[in-house]
Amino acid sequence: METHKERNTFNFKEYMIEKANYVNKAMDEAVSVKNPPKIHEAMRYSLLAGGKRVRPMLCIAACELVGGHQSAAMPAACAVEMIHTMSLIHDDLPCMDNDDLRRGKPTNHKVFGEDVAVLAGDSLLAFAFEFIVTAANMVPPNRVLEAVGELAKAIGTEGLVAGQVVDLSCTGNNTNVGLPQLEFIHIHKTAALLEASVVLGAILGGGSDEQVEKLRTFARKIGLLFQVVDDILDVTKSSEELGKTAGKDLMADKATYPKLLGLDQAREFAEKLNEEAKEQLAEFDSDKAAPLIALADYIAHRQN
Amino acid sequence: METHKERNTFNFKEYMIEKANYVNKAMDEAVSVKNPPKIHEAMRYSLLAGGKRVRPMLCIAACELVGGHQSAAMPAACAVEMIHTMSLIHDDLPCMDNDDLRRGKPTNHKVFGEDVAVLAGDSLLAFAFEFIVTAANMVPPNRVLEAVGELAKAIGTEGLVAGQVVDLSCTGNNTNVGLPQLEFIHIHKTAALLEASVVLGAILGGGSDEQVEKLRTFARKIGLLFQVVDDILDVTKSSEELGKTAGKDLMADKATYPKLLGLDQAREFAEKLNEEAKEQLAEFDSDKAAPLIALADYIAHRQN
Repeated sequence: METHKERNTFNFKEYMIEKANYVNKAMDEAVSVKNPPKIHEAMRYSLLAGGKRVRPMLCIAACELVGGHQSAAMPAACAVEMIHTMSLIHDDLPCMDNDDLRRGKPTNHKVFGEDVAVLAGDSLLAFAFEFIVTAANMVPPNRVLEAVGELAKAIGTEGLVAGQVVDLSCTGNNTNVGLPQLEFIHIHKTAALLEASVVLGAILGGGSDEQVEKLRTFARKIGLLFQVVDDILDVTKSSEELGKTAGKDLMADKATYPKLLGLDQAREFAEKLNEEAKEQLAEFDSDKAAPLIALADYIAHRQN
Repeated sequence: METHKERNTFNFKEYMIEKANYVNKAMDEAVSVKNPPKIHEAMRYSLLAGGKRVRPMLCIAACELVGGHQSAAMPAACAVEMIHTMSLIHDDLPCMDNDDLRRGKPTNHKVFGEDVAVLAGDSLLAFAFEFIVTAANMVPPNRVLEAVGELAKAIGTEGLVAGQVVDLSCTGNNTNVGLPQLEFIHIHKTAALLEASVVLGAILGGGSDEQVEKLRTFARKIGLLFQVVDDILDVTKSSEELGKTAGKDLMADKATYPKLLGLDQAREFAEKLNEEAKEQLAEFDSDKAAPLIALADYIAHRQN
């Protein structure tokens, strides 16, 4: 009885800390300070800056949900965080969003210079692919290759880059930006990599095609949710609470969900996305699905 | 008799044109103008700017030398050119080498803006990996994965990025730059990707471990050769002849082979590297090795 009860009481906080430690240790070892030191220090500065590790957690949780061991997902979990970090470094550059503060610290180019920041992003991007290949020690090579293709797609002109390009072209020009365009930006800039995180975990964990597609839909919903909540936090929290510059969307006159829908309706939309996401998990074992359900709730209700 | 004679008279010019057309067509189709248009136009602008396609040719020639069909090497041949193009776009940025002219045309950021240029490089980097995965249609997945790992390594802190970082740190500071450091820069900034081009072709063509290693040594030699010749051309040719800004190394007070060795000795060093490279091909069928031998001679004696 006691054991049964324990199994049902999923401790999300413990789970987050355990997985974050697991991934942080792996990334710390994977990107050590080697020659030339400056570029490795720049990569480590942003990679090990204490992010929430939501993407690696999604990757590992999806892998475990379909019956895989977390070690099968570990190279991909680190890879998606490397890609996320790379996109933050490049997006923060003066020629892009020109941001000085990230995760409560000066941005990469503020510390290492623009040239090294560009190169740190490039090498994190490349290293993500070098590292994900190591999954072939435990996973059939065709599955690892599928994961490589999925990850690449999430970065380029069907993913992060597409979102950033359209976002940049809309900045200061938000009178023409309606909901469809805003959704395009968020789906590409944020949801694509969250989707890849979940899908990579499911592929490397040995999931069936049907399971992978269920989890893909789940991930798309929480991906959009993630950004809607980000928009809400930007207008309701201080820079200190967020660890990054708050109110930036307003200052840049950017289209956001609170701006287009109003704050209350944006919050309702977020709740709806969360419910629709969790419906995708209905056919999985509920104990095993607990981490992903908790992650969806966490993304919906996080305060920074 | 006639046929035999024809087989022995390898026509390098025809070979170059045929392979360049083959790769250009594949890249033109692979990176078409889709939504969002601007980023695809930026990628195409630099990718289809009429480079010499030395890297794709090395990749295809190595594949054919070990008995593979050129179609097995095609995705990798395009991938190495995408990576090369990405590194040119990023290296030309104002925060790096700040170059206005490339292949006779304004550099990417001059036409599309710095933000789009950074993103065009990022998406070419990612797309190279998306595209190389398509080789799995003809090649066993474990070989494709090996190719992914090799390519990734050639980009990051053991390849292009390492070379560029050390190069940037030496600019304007050449009194401390000796031959070992210059060789470090060239081996990483140039030879690593040429090595990957050859090695990827050999892996995807089904080469044995021994063949791959022979070709790796060949590639390292011609990789260094390529840069020594580049240094020589920079001080002996005009911008018009090169299709890019000439004399830049001198103006930037950069260490180069002609500067450290003198022009005559730099030329001798180039010849020596060429001979040592070709020695690696001695054990292959001489007819089949003709393209790589001709490519080595071309790299040694090119005029731009």
